[in-house]
Amino acid sequence: MVALAAIFIVSAAAAAETDPLPSWNDGLTKEAIVGFVEKVTEEGGPDYVRPEDRIATFDNDGNLWAEKPVYFQLLFAIDRVKQLAPEHPEWKDKQPFKAAIEGDMKTLAASGLKGIAELVMASHAGMSPAEFQKIVSDWLATAKHPRFKRPYTDLVYQPMLELLSYLRDNGFTTYIVSGGGIEFVRNFSEAKYGIPPAQVVGSSIKTKYEVVDGVPTLIRLPEMNFINDKEGKPVGINQYIGQRPIFASGNSDGDYQMLDWTTAGDGPRFGLILHHTDAEREYAYDRDSSVGRLDKALDDAPRKGWVVIDMKKDWKTVFPSEN
Amino acid sequence: MVALAAIFIVSAAAAAETDPLPSWNDGLTKEAIVGFVEKVTEEGGPDYVRPEDRIATFDNDGNLWAEKPVYFQLLFAIDRVKQLAPEHPEWKDKQPFKAAIEGDMKTLAASGLKGIAELVMASHAGMSPAEFQKIVSDWLATAKHPRFKRPYTDLVYQPMLELLSYLRDNGFTTYIVSGGGIEFVRNFSEAKYGIPPAQVVGSSIKTKYEVVDGVPTLIRLPEMNFINDKEGKPVGINQYIGQRPIFASGNSDGDYQMLDWTTAGDGPRFGLILHHTDAEREYAYDRDSSVGRLDKALDDAPRKGWVVIDMKKDWKTVFPSEN
Repeated sequence: MVALAAIFIVSAAAAAETDPLPSWNDGLTKEAIVGFVEKVTEEGGPDYVRPEDRIATFDNDGNLWAEKPVYFQLLFAIDRVKQLAPEHPEWKDKQPFKAAIEGDMKTLAASGLKGIAELVMASHAGMSPAEFQKIVSDWLATAKHPRFKRPYTDLVYQPMLELLSYLRDNGFTTYIVSGGGIEFVRNFSEAKYGIPPAQVVGSSIKTKYEVVDGVPTLIRLPEMNFINDKEGKPVGINQYIGQRPIFASGNSDGDYQMLDWTTAGDGPRFGLILHHTDAEREYAYDRDSSVGRLDKALDDAPRKGWVVIDMKKDWKTVFPSEN
Repeated sequence: MVALAAIFIVSAAAAAETDPLPSWNDGLTKEAIVGFVEKVTEEGGPDYVRPEDRIATFDNDGNLWAEKPVYFQLLFAIDRVKQLAPEHPEWKDKQPFKAAIEGDMKTLAASGLKGIAELVMASHAGMSPAEFQKIVSDWLATAKHPRFKRPYTDLVYQPMLELLSYLRDNGFTTYIVSGGGIEFVRNFSEAKYGIPPAQVVGSSIKTKYEVVDGVPTLIRLPEMNFINDKEGKPVGINQYIGQRPIFASGNSDGDYQMLDWTTAGDGPRFGLILHHTDAEREYAYDRDSSVGRLDKALDDAPRKGWVVIDMKKDWKTVFPSEN
């Protein structure tokens, strides 16, 4: 009896020590995630999935990092448009440039990812991808979030970082599937999420190959290539990854189709929705938000079997602690 | 002295045993490849490259598997067009369909990758990617090469399989960057080359997401999305991989831009060209071939520092042995 108790205590301690999701409170959400991972990795089990089919896709804005007051890429685009405005007098009277220059966030937010795309196309083209990376890096190194006064890349969600690692430790390949610009997200995906550039799917502008003064060069063009949002997400996943995921994680109706397509597949599937319910530590928003609107996906989650994270209840911490 | 000799003999034997490229004859080509891999993997060395930057890209047709008498995907498309012809009487008088139905290979070969694309668009659309995979699998399982009387997937190059493995064993990530259809190549890339679907870049038709009778569905459309050839290869690499390779391997002028862009980067770079010089074991062709024309890249190889494989001289074997 003493021996048994000792074993129990040791096991419990070991389990606590090795909890792969320490920032998640115990409860149904965490249990559902761990239960899914355990069943698909149980060799010989009825729900076993081969490692090469363990594809997990994550939305980025509002899912891996914050997206309020507006998408961070939009704030980047605004700063860039302001910087370039003197060379573009025509922007003064043209939306969404006018709103960007005037800091009219409401008009900009309402323009959605398509509005960002327009700003990106006009202000982020004409350079090589490498030059663009430099511009993004410089901005991320200096810009600070208006409320949290921290760099934007500090505002990644600690529980999601743990979830990404937990999945990878269990043989999953983790992808970002973002409505945001692919080259913008690639700038920090490896350093912040452990996700290499090739595992980022996102919206993109066209790129042209040209030999300039004898130097092979790629040049970003002011022309939309692909919008990786809503119906675009399953299309983008098919195009870049070539496999249907078994695990999809999002936070808005922009992720509905990704979640629906993922969980409609045969065999074990997991759909995860992050519900922003924590105005104190982060933000509380869903149906009425112009950024990250969560409405239909929230309604359909029970029927579709999607697990909804209640940020306030399920997360012990939100952001990584400041160093 | 005896001890030293013994060590030498043991080392030589060990080296021979572990030759990672046994199907390559000793010589300058093999030395150049091994020398490059050794220098970029030498930690602390002046040419060291971090594993995450060891990106290697390989053309497929005529580079990882054969492409004569015409691209195998074209033979697949012809069989498919013939099969569907009764439903499409208009094809009788319309190129390249007329040529496909009549088996006029010369006209078809001259139509190049763009011609294939047209056949693919018209004959391979209207189904889901999964249904398309089934059609490709069925064809590959039954069709045989007209000269070698073996399944097409047997006509992969044994020395290239060894090179792919050797690079991966040395921390490289290997990608296919093909002018052929991405979903066609993905059908066998993992089984034959050890390259998963997500590491295949290729030409593509558009795909649409639709909920059909309540079922989330992707449907292939008869509309070109992207041609991953010539100038398209650096563009495709940037779009899918998001990094400039340090190693690129091709066999035709369609790979010129990929080779040029790759080897123009900073630091150690490697460009490799497969020259088909072996009419007996495979084929001999270069400047005058409508399939896999190698002209400008062959001229510029010495000046650009690209290593040219002489198939006849450098390869001990061409195809894997028949089982």
